[in-house]
Amino acid sequence: MSTQLPGSHDKLLFTPGPLTTSHAVKAAMLHDAGSWHFEFNAIVARIRERLLALAGLSRADGWEVILLQGSGTFGVEAIFQTCVPPQGKVAVLANGAYGERIVQMLHHARIDHAVLRTPENVPANPAALDDLLTRDSAITHVAAVHCETTTGILNPIDALGQVARQHRRLYIVDAMSSFGALPIDFAANGIDFLVSSSNKCIEGVPGFSFVFCRRPLLESCAGHARSLSLDLLAQLKGFDKNGQFRYTPPTHVLLAFDQALKELEAEGGRPGREARYRQNHAVLIAGLLSLGLHPHLDPAVQSPIITAVDFPNDPHFSFDGLYRRLSDRGFIIYPGKLTQCETFRVGSIGRLTSGDMEQLVFAIGAALREMGCSVPFAARPA
Amino acid sequence: MSTQLPGSHDKLLFTPGPLTTSHAVKAAMLHDAGSWHFEFNAIVARIRERLLALAGLSRADGWEVILLQGSGTFGVEAIFQTCVPPQGKVAVLANGAYGERIVQMLHHARIDHAVLRTPENVPANPAALDDLLTRDSAITHVAAVHCETTTGILNPIDALGQVARQHRRLYIVDAMSSFGALPIDFAANGIDFLVSSSNKCIEGVPGFSFVFCRRPLLESCAGHARSLSLDLLAQLKGFDKNGQFRYTPPTHVLLAFDQALKELEAEGGRPGREARYRQNHAVLIAGLLSLGLHPHLDPAVQSPIITAVDFPNDPHFSFDGLYRRLSDRGFIIYPGKLTQCETFRVGSIGRLTSGDMEQLVFAIGAALREMGCSVPFAARPA
Repeated sequence: MSTQLPGSHDKLLFTPGPLTTSHAVKAAMLHDAGSWHFEFNAIVARIRERLLALAGLSRADGWEVILLQGSGTFGVEAIFQTCVPPQGKVAVLANGAYGERIVQMLHHARIDHAVLRTPENVPANPAALDDLLTRDSAITHVAAVHCETTTGILNPIDALGQVARQHRRLYIVDAMSSFGALPIDFAANGIDFLVSSSNKCIEGVPGFSFVFCRRPLLESCAGHARSLSLDLLAQLKGFDKNGQFRYTPPTHVLLAFDQALKELEAEGGRPGREARYRQNHAVLIAGLLSLGLHPHLDPAVQSPIITAVDFPNDPHFSFDGLYRRLSDRGFIIYPGKLTQCETFRVGSIGRLTSGDMEQLVFAIGAALREMGCSVPFAARPA
Repeated sequence: MSTQLPGSHDKLLFTPGPLTTSHAVKAAMLHDAGSWHFEFNAIVARIRERLLALAGLSRADGWEVILLQGSGTFGVEAIFQTCVPPQGKVAVLANGAYGERIVQMLHHARIDHAVLRTPENVPANPAALDDLLTRDSAITHVAAVHCETTTGILNPIDALGQVARQHRRLYIVDAMSSFGALPIDFAANGIDFLVSSSNKCIEGVPGFSFVFCRRPLLESCAGHARSLSLDLLAQLKGFDKNGQFRYTPPTHVLLAFDQALKELEAEGGRPGREARYRQNHAVLIAGLLSLGLHPHLDPAVQSPIITAVDFPNDPHFSFDGLYRRLSDRGFIIYPGKLTQCETFRVGSIGRLTSGDMEQLVFAIGAALREMGCSVPFAARPA
């Protein structure tokens, strides 16, 4: 059914981001704004206010949010580059590519670290962290990934945070693909730094990340920054001084994000968005199971954000064959990223509805049949 | 003449970027693209091909271009973070804020450096560089800014490059606000690294920078990178591997840039664009002089990119008063950045014509009269 004619709309993105966004979010980019101009800086200020409110944080309690150019990874790395002292050491909880990416960052920055790995289908272990922090007094910071999009697994950031706090270590959370949809209680979890980005659950377009942190804590990091561009404290001081980014911001991306925040509010805020994503996810899972396809994770640890699906045991199946046939039908899925198992991934976030998920499942079935697969696939051996 | 009604079009940006862009460039962002998807990656590949062609470089001669998320500053810093060995030392030619920013980057990265400063209205001095490189054999790299937008001064990147080459030092050029409009001969100037960004003379929107370099030279820098996000060699290897950015690219910004490159070609490529900018600049200068306003620089060292204008000696003049009145009329100018003199700045780049420059000059005159200034201002004392 491949055709040379483009469809009447963009292909839908069932990915962990960049996502399908609303037309209004994209249309907000049809304007050129001056990055020094007071009208634009008022929008930047409004975005920062709304992000703090969305996180349930207030400046009166010492919290701040800092926007940083680049992808989410730049924001994660900025925390380490800015905030870990020369003699600091970071404990990293890793069960997927994003935990491992933190390890790479620390390696590049020559920051000492210890890694607590669990298998990719097993959440991070608070007891193991407790043990490590008891044994290794050199550790100053703990870093965890909330929703590890390698699999879609949810890590217990609450229990990990409580362990970190008991040991009086600073606690950094990568909430890239969860913030804005899943509930996060900063106080109860003892979070010191949390980072997410413009193109995840807030449904903006990619171009910047944002970091929540306690101002006095960040100010105590003066002099540590190993990179000028990634210096979060200098970035905050820039906003303090004149409301501006220190260096050219992605102005159009910020206009889109401002619109995305309005649409999040109109959807009922974070709870409304979570409800839609959970419904999307439920429709997806039911549909996959009806085709005899199996999510990789135990449902107890699966997030509603993204789902890794095991390859079926069928000689006619190939990821490339499925991917191309779905693309021809206007649906973009995501390749797997697990190291041990062959999977593909389907995201439930972005401007997608349960109807879109139904259509995707229908298209997956049609594509598999076209490939000669026996659908539904037989039950897996126990 | 301030009004509550927004105008029928965006205010025109007479700035060094973000710039006024064409409607078609912005409309290219009305699409969501998957960052892993082959159709998007074909666009990224096309952008890289076109950039190399625009620079007059070829892969057959070992040249590469690497796109990096973030503002232009991120691209400049990525060169130093990736390419200077632990015992390296950088000579920086500085006569404005962007040269000084390089010094800050080296300070953050704990990279040894020497600074050759000239006054902000005096171009960098090749003879002084020759002397420094003769005296200091520890220096491994030389860094210069082509068009220093603090003043709009043009530095002699050709003569500086020849000195660097005679001394067998690597040569890094920040051509942020000149590449795409002013001619740059990589071979004749002995350039090893050159960096620019999406929202300058190519007239895209902000969100990424790009670095030209020699592949074998970059590959010889393996292991030096002090930052994962800013690791140019890893970024190149990512493109090599699957045509993708390692981390989420600003997809919409890239779609806009692809369109901007098409429009540059339609305008007659770099020479066509330079001709328009030179005409814009000529109209601006004539208009300013007719009002008795004076460009800060000697015309012999002034670029056609951006012009710093001395504050008039009139008690009724204030920058804020002028800025607000021009904003009300739909024109955004730029504040000064000189340390010793009071100036404001006017850019000639972006989707602006000589007619727009005439309108701006008219509006400046009207605003000044409204403020009670005696226009035209009397001639400056000799």
